[in-house]
Amino acid sequence: MTSTPKTAGAASAEYAHKLPTQEEDFSGWYTTLVRAAQLADYAPVKGCMAIRPYGFALWENMQRLLDARIKATGHQNAYFPLLIPESLLKQEAEHVEGFAPQVAWVTHGGDDELEERLAIRPTSEAIICHFYSKWIESYRDLPVLINQWANVMRWEKVTRLFLRTTEFLWQEGHTAHRTGEEAVEETLRMLEVYRAFLEEDLAVPVYKGLKSESEKFAGAENTYSIEALMRDGRALQAGTSHYLATHFAKVFDITFQDERGQRQYVHQTSWGTTTRLIGAIIMVHGDDTGLRLPPRVAPYQVVVVPIYRKEEERATVYAFVDKVKAALAEAGIRYTVDTDDTQSPGFKYNEWERRGVPVRFEVGPRDVAAGQVFAARRDKKEKTPIPLAELTARTRALLDDVQAGLLEQAKAFRAEHTSDADSLDEMARLLEERRGFVRARWCGSADCEATVKERTSATIRCLPLGEPDDPGACVVCGKPASRRVLFAKSY
Amino acid sequence: MTSTPKTAGAASAEYAHKLPTQEEDFSGWYTTLVRAAQLADYAPVKGCMAIRPYGFALWENMQRLLDARIKATGHQNAYFPLLIPESLLKQEAEHVEGFAPQVAWVTHGGDDELEERLAIRPTSEAIICHFYSKWIESYRDLPVLINQWANVMRWEKVTRLFLRTTEFLWQEGHTAHRTGEEAVEETLRMLEVYRAFLEEDLAVPVYKGLKSESEKFAGAENTYSIEALMRDGRALQAGTSHYLATHFAKVFDITFQDERGQRQYVHQTSWGTTTRLIGAIIMVHGDDTGLRLPPRVAPYQVVVVPIYRKEEERATVYAFVDKVKAALAEAGIRYTVDTDDTQSPGFKYNEWERRGVPVRFEVGPRDVAAGQVFAARRDKKEKTPIPLAELTARTRALLDDVQAGLLEQAKAFRAEHTSDADSLDEMARLLEERRGFVRARWCGSADCEATVKERTSATIRCLPLGEPDDPGACVVCGKPASRRVLFAKSY
Repeated sequence: MTSTPKTAGAASAEYAHKLPTQEEDFSGWYTTLVRAAQLADYAPVKGCMAIRPYGFALWENMQRLLDARIKATGHQNAYFPLLIPESLLKQEAEHVEGFAPQVAWVTHGGDDELEERLAIRPTSEAIICHFYSKWIESYRDLPVLINQWANVMRWEKVTRLFLRTTEFLWQEGHTAHRTGEEAVEETLRMLEVYRAFLEEDLAVPVYKGLKSESEKFAGAENTYSIEALMRDGRALQAGTSHYLATHFAKVFDITFQDERGQRQYVHQTSWGTTTRLIGAIIMVHGDDTGLRLPPRVAPYQVVVVPIYRKEEERATVYAFVDKVKAALAEAGIRYTVDTDDTQSPGFKYNEWERRGVPVRFEVGPRDVAAGQVFAARRDKKEKTPIPLAELTARTRALLDDVQAGLLEQAKAFRAEHTSDADSLDEMARLLEERRGFVRARWCGSADCEATVKERTSATIRCLPLGEPDDPGACVVCGKPASRRVLFAKSY
Repeated sequence: MTSTPKTAGAASAEYAHKLPTQEEDFSGWYTTLVRAAQLADYAPVKGCMAIRPYGFALWENMQRLLDARIKATGHQNAYFPLLIPESLLKQEAEHVEGFAPQVAWVTHGGDDELEERLAIRPTSEAIICHFYSKWIESYRDLPVLINQWANVMRWEKVTRLFLRTTEFLWQEGHTAHRTGEEAVEETLRMLEVYRAFLEEDLAVPVYKGLKSESEKFAGAENTYSIEALMRDGRALQAGTSHYLATHFAKVFDITFQDERGQRQYVHQTSWGTTTRLIGAIIMVHGDDTGLRLPPRVAPYQVVVVPIYRKEEERATVYAFVDKVKAALAEAGIRYTVDTDDTQSPGFKYNEWERRGVPVRFEVGPRDVAAGQVFAARRDKKEKTPIPLAELTARTRALLDDVQAGLLEQAKAFRAEHTSDADSLDEMARLLEERRGFVRARWCGSADCEATVKERTSATIRCLPLGEPDDPGACVVCGKPASRRVLFAKSY
C-alpha cells in the first residue's frame, strides 16, 4: 500500500539482461528473472544471497499466511541458538553423518580459538533436543508444539538463487508427544497444512507422499513430502514432515513421567519449508514475459499506472488516482502507484508484467472522463474497464479469479505431464519426451530405485498417500509391486 | 487466544528457585525470573540463549508493532547474508576496529578450510553497503529505505539473558539519501519512532539524546540513543540511531548520478533495537512477585482461571467460561484459560502473576450464579466483578488502564531518580544514594568524561534533545559548559 515504489538498480546494465524464453533456456530464464525482477541478488560469499525488498515482501506474505496456519493447529513460535557445539551435533549418528559434510564451522570468537568447534545450524534437531530434555518432565508437559522461523546454513557445492542456497530462511517445527500414534498424526497433519498452504495460498498443486528410505531425512523413521512440478518438467520437493519416533529422544534422553509414574521416551516430529518456495512460485507460474504472482502473496496485488501527455492532464489524472487509491486502501488491497515521470506507460507495463503484479490499472484522461480504470490481468491477455463505483467488489473478484486461474493452469500442466509407465524403457522415453511425473510400479528395493536413477536420472519423489492399491510388476525387476510410485527428475 | 497453555518444565527443580526480592538481589531476581517465567534459557554455547514460547510471543508482539511503525514511515524489509568476508568487514577502518574483537569467525565449510575467513555479522553495514554500491545508480533510486529483522552475533565476555547475549535478535535499518540534511532528518525520525514505540507500546519512558564521541557507533558521524531507567537505578540504552554521513559511501563507493549528471556520494543512516528490550520491560515493570507485562505486548492479556471444588460444578463453570472466551475472542483480546486440573487456584494465581499477565478472571460457581467474572489486575492489588454483558468494553478499558498505569508508575520512578548535581562530589553521592540519572554540566572534553567514569563508574548516557541551554561550570573541570547532560551507571 505504498505509493512510491523504489526500483533501485533496475536500470543497471548488470540486471538488464534480456530474458530468454523458457523453451530456449529455462535455467537462464530463471536466474535472469530473479535478478531483473529484483527478488534476490548474489552475495560475495558463494551460494549466499540477499533477498531484496520485493522478494522479501513476497516472503513476508507467505510467512504470515503459513504462520497463521501453524498457529491455528496449536503451535507456538520460539527461537533456538544459531550455534551448536560439535559434540551435541554428533550425538545422533545418522543425523551427523547426513549433515556434517555441509556444516559451516565457527572456530574463533574474536581473537581466541574456541575449545570446541561450533556448527552454524544446518537444522535444529540436536540443539532443540538438548532443551527438550531439560524442559520436559511430566506427561502434563506434553505435547510440546513448537515452531521456529530462522536462517540455516548448508555448505552446498552447486547453488541457485532461492532453490538451493548456502544460507536460507525457513520454518522448522519440532514437536514431542506421548505416543507414536500421536506423533504420526502430527506428522501427517503438518503435511496437510503444507499442502493446503501451497494450493490455496501459492496456487501450487502438490502430491503428498512418503519418501523412500534412500531419500528420507537423516535420523528420521519416516519422511513425508509434498512435491510440485515446475514448468520445465522437473519436480521440486516443496516441504517435508518427519516422524522421528524415539530416535532422538533416546540419544538426547528426552523422557517424561506418565500417569503411572513410569519414565517414557517422547515421540517426536519435525517439519519444514523454506525460501525455496519462492523458486517454486517463479517456476510454476512464470512465463516468457516474467513473473506471475498469486494474488494472495503478491507484494502488490494491483499496480496503478497514471497516463497523461500534457501537463494539464496530470492533475486530473492524479485526482482520479487518489480516489482509486482510497477505494483500494479501504478494501485492504495491496497496491502501488507508479509515479515515475521519466518512463513511458509502455515501459512501465513491461516492468510490472515482468515483476508479476496480478492486476494493472491504467488511468488516462479518457478513463477519468468515463469514471473508470482500465484493468489488465497478468494471467491472461484480457483488459476490461471497471467503473470506480464498482472498483472494490470487482477488483476483489478479479484477484480471486486470477488466484483460481493460476491454480487451474498449474493443475492442467501437471496433468499433462503425469504419465503411467509399465517398463523402464517407457519410463525413460516419457521422462525424455513428456517430462514431468511418471507413475510406475516399484517393488520397494533400493537396487531397483538406483537402477532407475542411473538409467534416467529420475528419482522416487514419493509414494503418494491415499491411493488405492494397483498391483503389478516392478518396473525394474518385474517382482510383485503393490502400487505405483511417483518418479521424476528433480531440483 | 489458545486455551491450552503448556508450562513445560515449570515444575522442574532447575527453574523453581525462590525469587529474591529486587532490594536484596536485583541481578538474582532478574535471572531467576527470566527462567522461572519461561521467557528464556541458557544455551550450551556460553552467552547464547533459547527464547521460549512465552518470551518469543512477547517478542512477536513487539516486532509486529515496531514493524508497523517502521513500515508506516516508508521503509521496506529485506534480508542480507549472515556471513561477511573478512576483507569486506575490514574496509571501513573505524568500523572493523570497533567490531573485530567481537566477531565469530567461520573458517571451514564441511571438510574444507575456507580461503578467506567469514564473519558472522556483528551488524550489517559492511555487507549492505556492498549491495547498495551495486543497486544505487541514479538520484531516482533514492532514498533507499530498508530494514532487516535478523540474528547477529558479538562475542561478549560478560553476558546476561536478553541484556547482553552473544547471539541476539534485532532489527537494523539502513538508509541512503541524496543529502546530509535528509539523512539527519531520517536519523532523528527513527529515534522518534523508537521513543514512541517504547512509551506507547512498552510503557517504558525514555530520554532521547546524542551520544558523546566516546560512546558513538564505530564508523558513525553521530549516534543518537534512547535511554531508559531500570528499577535498580541503572540506565539501559534501549535503541540507537546513527548518522553515518558519507563515511561508508566513500569506502564502499556508493554513488548516484544527480539531475545534472554529477556523481555524488550517498548520505547514510543506520538504526537498531534488539531483544534487549525484553530485558527493559522486565526491569522497568517487574516487581517482587514477578513480571508485569504491558497489555499491548503481553502474550496473554487475560488469563481465565476456572474454580470448582465438586465435580458437578465443573460443567457449569466451564459452560460460563465458554461464554467468556467467546466475548474475549470477539473483542480480539489475547487470552488463555488455565485448565490444569492438578493445580489449585492459588497456585495458578501465583504462577500467572509471576508471568505478568495483566488481568486475571476468576470464575467460580458464585460468579456463574451472578453472571460475572471476578477481575484482578496485575499492576495494583485491585479486584472487581465484571458482568458478562459488559465484559468486552470493561476488559478493554481495564487493559488500557493497566497500560497507562504502568507508564505512569515508570515515569514517577524515573522522576524520583533523576537529580541535578553541580559538583563531582554531589554527583557521586547522588549516584550512590538516589541512583538513577544525574543531570550535570559537561564541557565536552573526553578527559572530564573519563574522570567521571573513574570516580563514579557512571557514563554520559546522552546529551538530551530539545532542552534549553543552561550554561554554567563543567562538573569536573569548571570550564564553561552550555548545558546539562545525563549521567548514569548503566547496563
